[in-house]
Amino acid sequence: MPRKDPHTVEDLGEFELIDRIEACARRAGCVTGDRVVLGIGDDAALLSLSPGFELVVSTDSLVEDVHFRWRDSAGVDIGRKALVTSLSDLAAMGARPIGFTFALHVQPSLPLAHVDDLMLGIAREAAANGAPLVGGNVSRSSATTLVMTVMGEVEAGRALLRSGLAPGDRLFVTGRFGGAALDVALASADPDGAASHRNRPSPRLAAGRALVESGLCAACIDCSDGLAADLTHMLEASGVGADVDASAVPRAPGLEDGAVIPSSRGAGPIDALALCLHGGEDYELIFGLRPVARGLPSTAALSDRLGVMVTEIGVVTERAGLRGWPAGRGHRHF
Amino acid sequence: MPRKDPHTVEDLGEFELIDRIEACARRAGCVTGDRVVLGIGDDAALLSLSPGFELVVSTDSLVEDVHFRWRDSAGVDIGRKALVTSLSDLAAMGARPIGFTFALHVQPSLPLAHVDDLMLGIAREAAANGAPLVGGNVSRSSATTLVMTVMGEVEAGRALLRSGLAPGDRLFVTGRFGGAALDVALASADPDGAASHRNRPSPRLAAGRALVESGLCAACIDCSDGLAADLTHMLEASGVGADVDASAVPRAPGLEDGAVIPSSRGAGPIDALALCLHGGEDYELIFGLRPVARGLPSTAALSDRLGVMVTEIGVVTERAGLRGWPAGRGHRHF
Repeated sequence: MPRKDPHTVEDLGEFELIDRIEACARRAGCVTGDRVVLGIGDDAALLSLSPGFELVVSTDSLVEDVHFRWRDSAGVDIGRKALVTSLSDLAAMGARPIGFTFALHVQPSLPLAHVDDLMLGIAREAAANGAPLVGGNVSRSSATTLVMTVMGEVEAGRALLRSGLAPGDRLFVTGRFGGAALDVALASADPDGAASHRNRPSPRLAAGRALVESGLCAACIDCSDGLAADLTHMLEASGVGADVDASAVPRAPGLEDGAVIPSSRGAGPIDALALCLHGGEDYELIFGLRPVARGLPSTAALSDRLGVMVTEIGVVTERAGLRGWPAGRGHRHF
Repeated sequence: MPRKDPHTVEDLGEFELIDRIEACARRAGCVTGDRVVLGIGDDAALLSLSPGFELVVSTDSLVEDVHFRWRDSAGVDIGRKALVTSLSDLAAMGARPIGFTFALHVQPSLPLAHVDDLMLGIAREAAANGAPLVGGNVSRSSATTLVMTVMGEVEAGRALLRSGLAPGDRLFVTGRFGGAALDVALASADPDGAASHRNRPSPRLAAGRALVESGLCAACIDCSDGLAADLTHMLEASGVGADVDASAVPRAPGLEDGAVIPSSRGAGPIDALALCLHGGEDYELIFGLRPVARGLPSTAALSDRLGVMVTEIGVVTERAGLRGWPAGRGHRHF
């Protein structure tokens, strides 16, 4: 008797699910890479590092009903975001990706089409950023969960840390801020609308590499908790403060001064600047450049070199604290 | 007004929870290592590899109500098991651990004492095996979830793979089998008893390293799905079969021939041999040695060199399939 086509994860077995995930990654061309000695299929993967390079590693999770809801998000966007979040950490260190592992936990009743969508989002993002899938595991769970561990390499001793800032360093950001927060606000105000997920950040890997190669970068962090919160992390790690110019922060489209952002459940109006500074999940880089005798490049030259718009937003001070911005709070998970 | 002492995860914030986890690892002395350039605290960790070595990486998960239940298990055992499962994969490749990341997802209502217990189990096991905690992340979730990504190093080109067996290779195992399955059977037959968790496997890291150094090992796998299932994985990956002697398999205490194992809910008697061969979660190594002109060492000499009891269980054949054992099935997660 022919077995019916599988429709849910439960219809498949554990090994068949792993095969399905691997097949999707294989189709997208993201199971091999120049540093992959042995990929999916053994007890562990084997990677080599380029001579003179160090390993850079970071782990991030996306959890259903905490970071996403199936009814609000397409699987491709969820999968994509899981990898972007992680690769953004490599970008902040100035590393080049060499591989990643992926733990997927799903409800047995989850439609296989959802798994396929997740994998499509992951595989496309992986292929776009040259990050091969080298291993992972699958399990049942009561909540869909994605855990990515990304690995990269950077020239030994040249990784961009949070802790390198000194007074006088000039502070810059890549890209624009507040887009992800605006999406959340719009979706919240209009749950049935199609407004959400217009914002699709990319990890700033090329920019991170260019910062390492410039030799000018004193410190760097990626913006996941919000510009103000992550800049504060970098300042505290460096034992310094900063004077910043809030009006200089480049805003995502729809967040211009005077923009009317609908709020949900009759709450007060949403402040565009607050979304920019405290919204989070922008995945842009925040970095400090050390002034040199010959002078720093112009922001136009920096933008050209980093392959993304670069904007100067302030200067590092000996005095602790972040001055020039309205108070607020970033993302918190509890 | 003094804030009351925190009792649950929710009473703490995200960053305070991370601090608490790091503090526990720091007390256990497992946040630094000879390959750790930069540990917990930045966007990513930095590790170096010994010259001429490759990176070995594996990811494993433990999920509440799938792999453990809070009412059945102590937190220290859960934490310990999460790391043992992962480190066992490094052992199977012949690698030495250099670090690991840890993603922890918990219910906000989870008592902090549970988190402390989990961390104690992880930190003790990490310290015992020289595996420093270098990063990770925390999140809320509806099910407690632990995802470990372990990293190790092995001499380039010398990792132990599943796929190296050839006809004539002799098959060996470390340790004894069926102990974990017996625990499950006993706990199931007597839910209120204290019989469970007598079995506490350790990752066979020293044995894996000794196998690499011996130059005799053709292939290796660790036993998580069950001896028969994992041996079959190795045979299939190598494109060979094996004649094995079931009576030679060393059994965990309580699984001698004629042992009476109580079964739950009036089911039939449990077969001791079946538990040994198909039980799973033994975390012993199964490996093949290639005969050499000077002859292989005796099992006594092998046991001495690997630091653990070694037993010969069969021989690799050109003919596919596993012969000499009763049929059965291993662990499956869906």
